[in-house]
Amino acid sequence: MKVNLAHGSGGNATRELISNLFKKYFSNEFLDRLEDSACLPPTAYPLAMTTDSYVITPIVFPGGNIGKLAVCGTANDLWMVGAEPQYITAGFILEEGLELEVLEAAVKTMAQTAKEINVKIVTGDTKVIEGSGGLYINTAGLGFIKHRHQLGAERIKAGDSIIVSGTLGNHQSCIFAQRMKIENKITSDCACLGSMVEALLNSGLGLRIMRDITRGGLGTVLNEVAEAGKISIQIEEKLIPIDPEVKGFCDILGLDPIYMANEGKFMVIVDSRDEEKALEILRKNSLGKMAGVIGKVTETGNQLVTVKTKLGGSRIIDVLQGEGLPRIC
Amino acid sequence: MKVNLAHGSGGNATRELISNLFKKYFSNEFLDRLEDSACLPPTAYPLAMTTDSYVITPIVFPGGNIGKLAVCGTANDLWMVGAEPQYITAGFILEEGLELEVLEAAVKTMAQTAKEINVKIVTGDTKVIEGSGGLYINTAGLGFIKHRHQLGAERIKAGDSIIVSGTLGNHQSCIFAQRMKIENKITSDCACLGSMVEALLNSGLGLRIMRDITRGGLGTVLNEVAEAGKISIQIEEKLIPIDPEVKGFCDILGLDPIYMANEGKFMVIVDSRDEEKALEILRKNSLGKMAGVIGKVTETGNQLVTVKTKLGGSRIIDVLQGEGLPRIC
Repeated sequence: MKVNLAHGSGGNATRELISNLFKKYFSNEFLDRLEDSACLPPTAYPLAMTTDSYVITPIVFPGGNIGKLAVCGTANDLWMVGAEPQYITAGFILEEGLELEVLEAAVKTMAQTAKEINVKIVTGDTKVIEGSGGLYINTAGLGFIKHRHQLGAERIKAGDSIIVSGTLGNHQSCIFAQRMKIENKITSDCACLGSMVEALLNSGLGLRIMRDITRGGLGTVLNEVAEAGKISIQIEEKLIPIDPEVKGFCDILGLDPIYMANEGKFMVIVDSRDEEKALEILRKNSLGKMAGVIGKVTETGNQLVTVKTKLGGSRIIDVLQGEGLPRIC
Repeated sequence: MKVNLAHGSGGNATRELISNLFKKYFSNEFLDRLEDSACLPPTAYPLAMTTDSYVITPIVFPGGNIGKLAVCGTANDLWMVGAEPQYITAGFILEEGLELEVLEAAVKTMAQTAKEINVKIVTGDTKVIEGSGGLYINTAGLGFIKHRHQLGAERIKAGDSIIVSGTLGNHQSCIFAQRMKIENKITSDCACLGSMVEALLNSGLGLRIMRDITRGGLGTVLNEVAEAGKISIQIEEKLIPIDPEVKGFCDILGLDPIYMANEGKFMVIVDSRDEEKALEILRKNSLGKMAGVIGKVTETGNQLVTVKTKLGGSRIIDVLQGEGLPRIC
């Protein structure tokens, strides 16, 4: 069965979609009331709020699908500011002709992923537009900030260590290969970062700032951090963890992992005295086995990001110019 | 200038869009930090959370545009559960080729509308997809529930009065006329309902439940309420307020205002002893001048919605079947 315009009418077809699909998979005490808004209990914590739309194509890819991405991506954004994700809203824009099976698979994965990280999908919306079977999902997330005091660009100092939680480039290489119908074993790194982040936050180490390395890649993230913290950063190319197959793929196509999107990696700046302990915590986690220190905060004031190349030279890394690959998330 | 795929890259073009457009208009202490998530102060109130995607075509229409709709619609959903809207997130999905001017006009109106109702747009996201200049906006809203105890389907009793806050059918007739390029004076009723709702909630009257009458129209809303409250409802056709021009338009095209979408109207059920006072409060507001009682809760248990027609007969009103008009909101 396929989605048709009536599924977005707000009438009977919409109601069927809600009870046969969304309520079936997302069911919880808040969503089940099916009111205009989910009514949630009070909390003493400060709040974190985020939103992302997902327009990835293909909808299903090795390592995940749009539903997993939508929950992980939004939850990751909350973890990055020291918040614990609690509630997610889900706005679906369906193109006419979308197979209900495809939608159901995405919804099922969303529900499963949310359950794994103890987050509730509390309210949603469905719209149908003309088109050819596409699917867009917006998720907004609400988190409780339990660790805010530990984080902030203003805490960064010269000499601090830059750590990445794992190999770079996997997600974008995977999507690229799928689009070009290249057969390889590259899978997306799409994952929820909570277990690593919470272990770091509870460790008492000297953390400065965390950023997930998504669209725009490491290069863009480092520049944003340099700007926010009014610092300079130097990283070493040879220290950036990259899977051999991803490296081969990038070499052939002339892609630069520094600018490639990931969906399960983050960067954290720590007091250099704590770098070993931070690495130990990350590497204990199955998602952080390849975590490594890739560089240092060199000075404050200049806001320049440079990379020492494998050949011994040095070049400036700017933010991503142009477009790496559209509809990657 | 037009939107291109690089505007969704997360790199330089995205950053330019953020600083030249979103930050320029939405600027506030939370958004300006440009972090992955907005960090918000704690509150003692219970929370309400809602989301809606807006895919309306045309993007600009008499009485509003997609930006006004996105803020009003999400805020209205929060007011309906007795919450005061506080924060909104904005997810933009832009089709390549969208004129930046069109986007700017929508963003400007969003900012203006949010300011009028004292709501802050605290975080956002931009994605670009292939297409032909379309614009989709998702807004998620967070509100503080200050009046929850006054509302609930379980409070509805036989004899209660059903009130609508004004004329029905204006928004859908307006969009219909725009699409068919029919010239008339019908404008959308797109509006924020907060001033009326807050006056009611602060009045101490015996309120039962409120619902905004959007997609699916009054017929669908009444059925949802009948189901939630396990009650039956009878309304009178001749009591439903309809603008003469909307009535003429609907008569010619065979449209039924009972199933038509509005974007600035709500239904409230009140203790019948308070109906006059409730009407007085609504009519004092410029948006509620045409408010009227349209029927009663007749009994509990049956969950049937009926309408007494102008000719004296009675018919059952079900939820909307099929699609009234796609992409109306």
